[in-house]
Amino acid sequence: MQNIDTLVHAKWLIPIEPQATVYENYSIAIDKGRILALLPSEKANSHYKASEVHHFDKHALLPGLINTHGHAAMTLMRGLADDLPLMTWLNEHIWPTEAKWVSNEFVYDGSLIACAEMLRGGTTCFTDMYFFPEEVVRAAEQAQIRASVGLIVIDFPSAYAQDADEYLRKGLALHNQLRGNPLIKTSFAPHAPYTVADEALQKVNTLAEELDIPVQIHLHETEDEINQAVKETGKRPIERLEALGLLSSRLIAVHMTQLTDKDIQTLATYGVQVAHCPESNLKLASGFCPVQKLIDAGINVALGTDGAASNNDLDMFSEMRTAALLAKAVAKDARAVSAEQALRMATINGAKALGLDKEIGSLEVGKAADIIAVDLSALETQPMYNPVSQLVYVANRQQVSDVWVAGKHVVKQHQLTTLDSEQLCKTAQQWQQKINA
Amino acid sequence: MQNIDTLVHAKWLIPIEPQATVYENYSIAIDKGRILALLPSEKANSHYKASEVHHFDKHALLPGLINTHGHAAMTLMRGLADDLPLMTWLNEHIWPTEAKWVSNEFVYDGSLIACAEMLRGGTTCFTDMYFFPEEVVRAAEQAQIRASVGLIVIDFPSAYAQDADEYLRKGLALHNQLRGNPLIKTSFAPHAPYTVADEALQKVNTLAEELDIPVQIHLHETEDEINQAVKETGKRPIERLEALGLLSSRLIAVHMTQLTDKDIQTLATYGVQVAHCPESNLKLASGFCPVQKLIDAGINVALGTDGAASNNDLDMFSEMRTAALLAKAVAKDARAVSAEQALRMATINGAKALGLDKEIGSLEVGKAADIIAVDLSALETQPMYNPVSQLVYVANRQQVSDVWVAGKHVVKQHQLTTLDSEQLCKTAQQWQQKINA
Repeated sequence: MQNIDTLVHAKWLIPIEPQATVYENYSIAIDKGRILALLPSEKANSHYKASEVHHFDKHALLPGLINTHGHAAMTLMRGLADDLPLMTWLNEHIWPTEAKWVSNEFVYDGSLIACAEMLRGGTTCFTDMYFFPEEVVRAAEQAQIRASVGLIVIDFPSAYAQDADEYLRKGLALHNQLRGNPLIKTSFAPHAPYTVADEALQKVNTLAEELDIPVQIHLHETEDEINQAVKETGKRPIERLEALGLLSSRLIAVHMTQLTDKDIQTLATYGVQVAHCPESNLKLASGFCPVQKLIDAGINVALGTDGAASNNDLDMFSEMRTAALLAKAVAKDARAVSAEQALRMATINGAKALGLDKEIGSLEVGKAADIIAVDLSALETQPMYNPVSQLVYVANRQQVSDVWVAGKHVVKQHQLTTLDSEQLCKTAQQWQQKINA
Repeated sequence: MQNIDTLVHAKWLIPIEPQATVYENYSIAIDKGRILALLPSEKANSHYKASEVHHFDKHALLPGLINTHGHAAMTLMRGLADDLPLMTWLNEHIWPTEAKWVSNEFVYDGSLIACAEMLRGGTTCFTDMYFFPEEVVRAAEQAQIRASVGLIVIDFPSAYAQDADEYLRKGLALHNQLRGNPLIKTSFAPHAPYTVADEALQKVNTLAEELDIPVQIHLHETEDEINQAVKETGKRPIERLEALGLLSSRLIAVHMTQLTDKDIQTLATYGVQVAHCPESNLKLASGFCPVQKLIDAGINVALGTDGAASNNDLDMFSEMRTAALLAKAVAKDARAVSAEQALRMATINGAKALGLDKEIGSLEVGKAADIIAVDLSALETQPMYNPVSQLVYVANRQQVSDVWVAGKHVVKQHQLTTLDSEQLCKTAQQWQQKINA
């Protein structure tokens, strides 16, 4: 008998790797924050003596979901302005509110609420793009959620920085401060081709290669963006980024609703990662990302919620379902993006996009113990022909009962162990009153 | 002080009529199954002495949701076959399973599970199209859910009936048996233009006019359906139904993903009702219903889940969200189908489609007390700038805490009062084992 930290038994275990595998009556042994073994429950009990033992007789265990695009602090603007076109929404609602309110406190409070929402809903790792990334880090560390925090770069002044150089300088300082941090990584986050000039994009590229971190950017989000770019530069944004040397497997291209076959070929050639945000793309009427075409071209497609101001939630279960459903109608083929593929997009593909697939994204021996338990006992998920189908096409995030990040039990029977939900509700209400005043 | 049955106080009350109205700290007085009054909570306490008083300090009250298209019994095939084109799905999976198993018992058990799922998720009225409608009635009466049960007509033999005449005969007998039933109404349900011949469609039309009940039919669901019809009859299905005299405000046209501007004009001219099933249309890659164009043409658009075998749930919250999100991208306009419009589609528009808008679909004095309470207190629905936005874009059906149908408290603090959920789970599992064997 080997002494270990935690032993979790479950009715179903979905490891993601190997593909299309569902183990029944299986267990996962966790020690020092990592996965030590996956084995049938009857063997587990005779092999391991664990300090903590959990039984999930009616649950599926799977890797924590990975949200590859968002703006956590914008949770404070959830539902502030709906049913508006992107530029009206930005110019008349989001940007004025941000100009007035964005501050260290706003970003910390909003990010903390977002971390709570994500953990409760089974997301164990997120990436972020927003002002005051130091505050996003502070919130993520307090919540004990894994993150790839974006070092934002944008060519307009904000309460956080005055110009691209200052954004970059502050970003680098944060990156240095986080070296060796086991949970929090960084990526560069130039906002978009239309808000960041060539010079800053080239600096970002050089630094990203030097530091070996990803670059995330909003790209080909709307038809207007493309038309404007062609008019002003003679190039589609992808062509401009290619010329600047930014296209590589280091680049996470977010949205990508406007793609020609040639664009797709270019993305595939450079191994660019795509962060697909179906609900945000629908809500802002941005367009349809041709997901199955991307997959067929060998491109890695991950999933993101985008910010709660344009979604309006940080719910990766809903995002998986929408991704699987929408891809079929867009491809005119009901076989496009199966339940299995949607679940991979939300797990291992997300890990690949963030360069973290050696660490997370599947339940494999040696990887970090980022695990969620989903209760599949209710009437709504019966009968149970296939747990993966139920997880993607039926289950809601309210069915996530328990969550571990790096072996730490951060959600226990639906309750956060690292944060106080009631206090966070009050914080949200206080911001609502201020913003509405 | 007036003695009444029930008084319900709530933080928010969303009556649907008048439009775009949200009352705060409001109450609803219920007596003999009907809405007696809507008034500010402080006044309510001095006007009424109720046998039962409920306080919902963190909830929104709204009319029960109306599911205008489904096949309740198919819940037993939830997740049996996913990610397949419509005809493969039907020919190789659904129809063989039905041929083997559909019986009185199958339909009763499946429908009872569906009724339980719908009530728990805030749906208080549904329409149905399936074999053995007598069993759907039996299940709905036991659950105490309101229904418009379809009298199915189809030109192929089943365990239920041998030919169109027998389907019609059995349907009429059921209709007669239900005369005067306060909860259960009927509608004719010819399956589709491609499965019902002209003669039977004309009989349906004559009888529907005589009995003054709706006719529901799958229509323009896929491109193949149109192409096949044009090849075989020289007419698009809508044109054929027009020639047969079926187009009228009595007709509920289900799906409608393939519509020319001329088709839309025709629908508007006759006042045809549309039951939009966005999740089923996506999952089967059937196409996109041009919802905003229909609304602009003055057509009443209601919402349906379709059966759980092609959705895979009977969740009207999810359907509202998908309808609102998808319509924007299809219309290329983020203003299309606002949260308010989506909520109307799931309530008053559904009531209109079923010819029941004098009875249900809004919280108005004199209407039946079909009411749901949705808990909006959790972190996930904070901050709260606009309850309607939260209900449509964020809330999940798990947040429905209480449900009344005709004043009867059928879901109390998430628990069904009319049915035993655990027993129904066991029933679902037994069918799963049989069907899988």
